[in-house]
Amino acid sequence: MRAIERVNKKIRLNRDSPIPERGGGEFLIRVLSAGICGTDLEIRKGYMGFEGIPGHEFVGRVVEDGGEGMVGARVVSEINCGCGKCDYCLASMRRHCPARTVIGISGRPGAFADYIVVPAENVHRIPDVYSDLLAVLVEPFAAALKAVEDGDLSNGHRLVILGDGRLGIMVSLAARLEGYHPLLLGKHPEKLAFAERAGVEVRLWNGSFRTSWRGAFDRVFDCTGNPEGIGIALDLIKPMGRVVMKTTISRESQFPLASLVINEVELVGSRCGDFTCAIPLMGKVSDILQQMITAVYDLEAWEGAFQRAADPDSLKVIFHMAE
Amino acid sequence: MRAIERVNKKIRLNRDSPIPERGGGEFLIRVLSAGICGTDLEIRKGYMGFEGIPGHEFVGRVVEDGGEGMVGARVVSEINCGCGKCDYCLASMRRHCPARTVIGISGRPGAFADYIVVPAENVHRIPDVYSDLLAVLVEPFAAALKAVEDGDLSNGHRLVILGDGRLGIMVSLAARLEGYHPLLLGKHPEKLAFAERAGVEVRLWNGSFRTSWRGAFDRVFDCTGNPEGIGIALDLIKPMGRVVMKTTISRESQFPLASLVINEVELVGSRCGDFTCAIPLMGKVSDILQQMITAVYDLEAWEGAFQRAADPDSLKVIFHMAE
Repeated sequence: MRAIERVNKKIRLNRDSPIPERGGGEFLIRVLSAGICGTDLEIRKGYMGFEGIPGHEFVGRVVEDGGEGMVGARVVSEINCGCGKCDYCLASMRRHCPARTVIGISGRPGAFADYIVVPAENVHRIPDVYSDLLAVLVEPFAAALKAVEDGDLSNGHRLVILGDGRLGIMVSLAARLEGYHPLLLGKHPEKLAFAERAGVEVRLWNGSFRTSWRGAFDRVFDCTGNPEGIGIALDLIKPMGRVVMKTTISRESQFPLASLVINEVELVGSRCGDFTCAIPLMGKVSDILQQMITAVYDLEAWEGAFQRAADPDSLKVIFHMAE
Repeated sequence: MRAIERVNKKIRLNRDSPIPERGGGEFLIRVLSAGICGTDLEIRKGYMGFEGIPGHEFVGRVVEDGGEGMVGARVVSEINCGCGKCDYCLASMRRHCPARTVIGISGRPGAFADYIVVPAENVHRIPDVYSDLLAVLVEPFAAALKAVEDGDLSNGHRLVILGDGRLGIMVSLAARLEGYHPLLLGKHPEKLAFAERAGVEVRLWNGSFRTSWRGAFDRVFDCTGNPEGIGIALDLIKPMGRVVMKTTISRESQFPLASLVINEVELVGSRCGDFTCAIPLMGKVSDILQQMITAVYDLEAWEGAFQRAADPDSLKVIFHMAE
């Protein structure tokens, strides 16, 4: 099969990659489409030291299921695969299993390939009315919903989302869907215009906001993907406010922790969300979400796809492998 | 009157400082005793750029009260003084009033003097059975209780307190008082031995704990007063755990935020606590708290007192001004 592989720190397309073999409790899936995420761009640079096939946002069709009656079903998959035995797995928190693998990110091949094997328990059916392109967005949309949940929001809260990338826009949409009114700050007029058309209040970032809006927001979501985001968040947050961190970068961040203590601020890290809730909810914003897809590439054109995904004006680039 | 003053970045004793004048809604208080806190040592070095009389942990006797019937009462005082008009003040959160002054820390003279003026609303009576030395500890003890509250603890949580200084020991005692069983980690055998005699489980810090105890604790309290504390806390905390930060330092901290996001950790800053609860509660640990007082100095011997307070083996150094 075809697979994009990172080997010896270099990424390439291998047209003779073996089709993976299904183990017990696993499904073999024909990949239909797979999205390129910020994490994939970081992995290419060395994040997590991952080697193998990247890609963790995908939709596919079950090919082999060990008799579970799922062959032919169109499905998506949660990305964390637990050991099934530890306290975290037994408490339905396999995303924190110390022995976990993560599809296309850590210890397990991903979806930038014609086929993938995933644990049966990670798989969710996708409604027929959802296009393949929409289905690819379940994973990031679930994460965006989780970020909003982690924000512990109340009506009347002033909330700001830092960063107008894929993530910031999705968190904005998720917050709107939950009935809140976020302000999205970013540096890209076209992306901001897109979010505005989707009903989100937006402002082009201006460094003077750090002083003029100091302490003005009850909730701040850092979706900048930049080590400077946390410092801006701590400037804008109200005393006793809550900052949700979505930025995962390998570099260290540096900031004065004193302001966090003096202002009694809460800072909470947010990662992956629950697909069970995300799948039905995303139907309510499917039109807007589909418009986030900047371009669709064949796996053969992977170099162009990665380049396009790294383009500051791009929102979501997707590989299309099969019907 | 006598007052220790920081003027032009230098600290000195002024024997001819004017007795402060009481404004409306304020009490003039004769200072009986005042404690030297880590913040005072930082202020001497330049923290907050404070100039004037430092000192914020004190007990005194009301001398003038504008007819409020408090003359002669032995009292302590909360340290944050609000404007009384803003949303924070009206919501009983004057410690976050944007226009606040803080006794001996920001915009308001402190207690290392024979007299002090404080807002009447900040004052609390101290029971006769509490010694002056114990009363001086109300402020740090209230902050320790607040840290435990901010930890959002449950039975069965494994909790660790980093740092065996004044603060770490007080947080340990507060946690024990609330029925929890913290492990106190520190670098000073004598301080650890003291905490152990008070019923706290202790271990001498060993750098290998960062790996052997990685992800082992549900709650971590950073009381190190060191920019490295946060990194250690993020190593020891469990996924979805909560880190309480008590360290306030002017230097910046540097650490990989990715681990906070991947492990979905909460980090919360904790500052000042409520005197109303702390005053009755501290009676239950009064013997141990009093044993934390390393030495008592006259204001005239201020240089020795500051030196002693900065000594790594010292727990709490107190000025005694009057009976």
